Amino acid sequence: MKPNDLPQFDTAALRAKDAAHHLHPFTDTKSLNAAGSRVIVRGEGVRIWDSEGNEIIDGMSGLWCVNLGYGRQDLVDAATHQMQTLPFYNAFFKTTTAPATELAALLPQVAPPGFNHVFFTNSGSEGNDTIIRLVRRYWDLMGQPQRKTIISRHNAYHGSTLGGASLGGMSGMHEQGDLPLPGITHIDQPYQLQHGKPGESAHDFGLRAASWLEAKILEVGADKVAAFIGEPVQGAGGVIIPPASYWPEIQRICDKYGLLLISDEVICGFGRLGHWFGCQHPHINSKPDLITFAKGVTSGYLPLGGVLVGDRVAKVLIEQGGDFNHGFTYSGHPTCCAVAIANVSALRNEGVVERVATDTAPYLKAQFATLADHPLVGDVDSLGMVAGLVLYKDNASRTLFDADLGVGYLCRDHCFKNGVVMRAVEERMIIAPPLVMTHAEIDEMIRRIRRSLDDTLAGLRAQGLV
Amino acid sequence: MKPNDLPQFDTAALRAKDAAHHLHPFTDTKSLNAAGSRVIVRGEGVRIWDSEGNEIIDGMSGLWCVNLGYGRQDLVDAATHQMQTLPFYNAFFKTTTAPATELAALLPQVAPPGFNHVFFTNSGSEGNDTIIRLVRRYWDLMGQPQRKTIISRHNAYHGSTLGGASLGGMSGMHEQGDLPLPGITHIDQPYQLQHGKPGESAHDFGLRAASWLEAKILEVGADKVAAFIGEPVQGAGGVIIPPASYWPEIQRICDKYGLLLISDEVICGFGRLGHWFGCQHPHINSKPDLITFAKGVTSGYLPLGGVLVGDRVAKVLIEQGGDFNHGFTYSGHPTCCAVAIANVSALRNEGVVERVATDTAPYLKAQFATLADHPLVGDVDSLGMVAGLVLYKDNASRTLFDADLGVGYLCRDHCFKNGVVMRAVEERMIIAPPLVMTHAEIDEMIRRIRRSLDDTLAGLRAQGLV
Repeated sequence: MKPNDLPQFDTAALRAKDAAHHLHPFTDTKSLNAAGSRVIVRGEGVRIWDSEGNEIIDGMSGLWCVNLGYGRQDLVDAATHQMQTLPFYNAFFKTTTAPATELAALLPQVAPPGFNHVFFTNSGSEGNDTIIRLVRRYWDLMGQPQRKTIISRHNAYHGSTLGGASLGGMSGMHEQGDLPLPGITHIDQPYQLQHGKPGESAHDFGLRAASWLEAKILEVGADKVAAFIGEPVQGAGGVIIPPASYWPEIQRICDKYGLLLISDEVICGFGRLGHWFGCQHPHINSKPDLITFAKGVTSGYLPLGGVLVGDRVAKVLIEQGGDFNHGFTYSGHPTCCAVAIANVSALRNEGVVERVATDTAPYLKAQFATLADHPLVGDVDSLGMVAGLVLYKDNASRTLFDADLGVGYLCRDHCFKNGVVMRAVEERMIIAPPLVMTHAEIDEMIRRIRRSLDDTLAGLRAQGLV
Repeated sequence: MKPNDLPQFDTAALRAKDAAHHLHPFTDTKSLNAAGSRVIVRGEGVRIWDSEGNEIIDGMSGLWCVNLGYGRQDLVDAATHQMQTLPFYNAFFKTTTAPATELAALLPQVAPPGFNHVFFTNSGSEGNDTIIRLVRRYWDLMGQPQRKTIISRHNAYHGSTLGGASLGGMSGMHEQGDLPLPGITHIDQPYQLQHGKPGESAHDFGLRAASWLEAKILEVGADKVAAFIGEPVQGAGGVIIPPASYWPEIQRICDKYGLLLISDEVICGFGRLGHWFGCQHPHINSKPDLITFAKGVTSGYLPLGGVLVGDRVAKVLIEQGGDFNHGFTYSGHPTCCAVAIANVSALRNEGVVERVATDTAPYLKAQFATLADHPLVGDVDSLGMVAGLVLYKDNASRTLFDADLGVGYLCRDHCFKNGVVMRAVEERMIIAPPLVMTHAEIDEMIRRIRRSLDDTLAGLRAQGLV
């Protein structure tokens, strides 16, 4: 399994440099420095290796992004060729580059009907920030400038700029920066474990959770609400898969009040759910006006994000808008766009998205479900290539661990030790593996997860905590 | 001059695709589509080529970023090698990659003293957005949470996220999105043409322009002001070079009231002014607490930005801050960081920054100054490798053209036609060429600019406008 070309690093020296100089994202630097960083040095297929030679199955695809897996020479070649020809030129001042234009023309071929225009950014954060400005511009041009409020959901994740973090519903982010910004408000998430009523069916809960949108619209004033934004499946929030009744009812409410519907497809886009975009999955089935994308568009090989602008908005913006005073130096960066073209072409030519739907995702679902017999585990669920479970102190009575115990982080550390990346979000353990995973690799991943759950349980028992 | 490997494109087909699908940054799409985009297909050294084979000297370095020029195989190799090894892994969850760590350790070696920590983003916009959150977090941790207001300047450019556009002082951006955000306020820019008094010396104007900061601090309340942000030389605002008296006085005022000083070095960083960072130029000579960087850190070959965090802020954030709930999927993207390492190493090993200071910038200044005898031209000035001039209807009486005439855009179009990229900002024509330009290339650029000024003048005369 170990590649011959595993790079050699002085781990201690790297850790010392890292501690002295590198401020990691979403990190307590003091605490990290006391422990020391793990240095990832190699990737191939669905596996990564650290600087000490440990091989790890990457159950999180980098960070929800390496959809095609590591080691794709075609993506490398696309970058190399473009960088040798024209590494960068801007798309301001009446100019473009071939990769930016070709990608703008390619994406509508895989997007839902009615999406014909693309605005490029560097990231999902910048994509959602762009959407706030697009939405406000749209309603100004429509002669309804009072439509300012965007409704989102608690525990949503929409990026980390002031705009993105405000659209998101992460309380820890809101506390550090006086967020959310004015004009952004939140309803509760469709998470039955947290908000369900005893005996309530998933179907009924989904309808009730969607009704919170209508209640919020009426609270704000229907003429003041501009848009609703949601991830088809909340990712960073913990793979919160809504009941099938949820999104159609959200759609009905958006239509009723004329809201723009924004589907944040940064995680769900580019095949993650077995469809090009999550909104196309029959379980979701929404008809958004704007789509945010990033991550999977390049399989993370290079940074790229953007907004797919549906005809409803594009027509007004182009015909009536004049100058749209917004953009980024690297909007349409030719090298990043060249990699995206290679990535989207590979996803399409190799039938990856269809295989996820018909084969890989059903197999993952079946194997992941086998974990349900573990004493710590309950509420096992998946959709496409995202899956999650709940760690219960007592899964018969659905008793959760004390949150302060941080049992998820204990489990996550066991996972790393056992050679699988799994992410902990409160009571939930989640995965989003590369779309190209084979059955054998899924089997191996599930075995490593089970071993990690066993180790977690043994550790808790040794401390008398379960 | 024409490379043998100039790629062949069907320009008409690309233009049609571009018009149908590509929403360009800062663009009136309807107007652009009527004219059609120019497609840039090749770069080598300081030159670019369009799809029709026209060769153009890139007087704007892509967009203030291609500091090393096009066609650097060392930067391509760095990307190729890293993409083959490990294209991406995240820096969340106690992990890092060698390029992210090595770049975090390298940047303090070229930064001003007291800058030892780096937070990575994808862009300057995300860098400035990050700074807003860092500044607020710092003052919260210092027990002065009422210090919220950040003071910036009209006509400043700090990016295009809601946060970046708010810090910026571009009225056209503020109008499209209800900006600036609360807690951000602006003073006038140190632009003597706009704000100078008759007979006032540059020295006196600089001191007076800096005094507007103190007046604003007192207006807001000294205990409520968190920070001041400024570009050493305003770039997108039109290469506004402040008098030498300006920044020392800004520094004195920031020190007097305990403000954090933020130097936005997205344009001025990485050698643009003949020093690693603009704040180190004797004409500027400020001592910032936080530095935003992007563009020149990779010469634009791949997207990368970030914040250099000075010890004053880093110490508090690390020792007292706990989790900093902020970051981006691609914070520390290993491929982008690998290219940055190659770029910074090349700037250092080849003595590019020193050569700008001792040779290239003085030569550019002398040659650019020869344009001052042109009938349309006045107020020729440069600092390092940025330069600007004012287009006057009558330069003797300093009479400007009617703004509605858009004479700068006429001149810009002539520049393109004559094979040089020059940018128009209101009454100003500006350049920021690659740092590696030779004397012969500077001579050729100046000749093409002069020819374009002549063509502009001839066109205006033909219409009886001058």
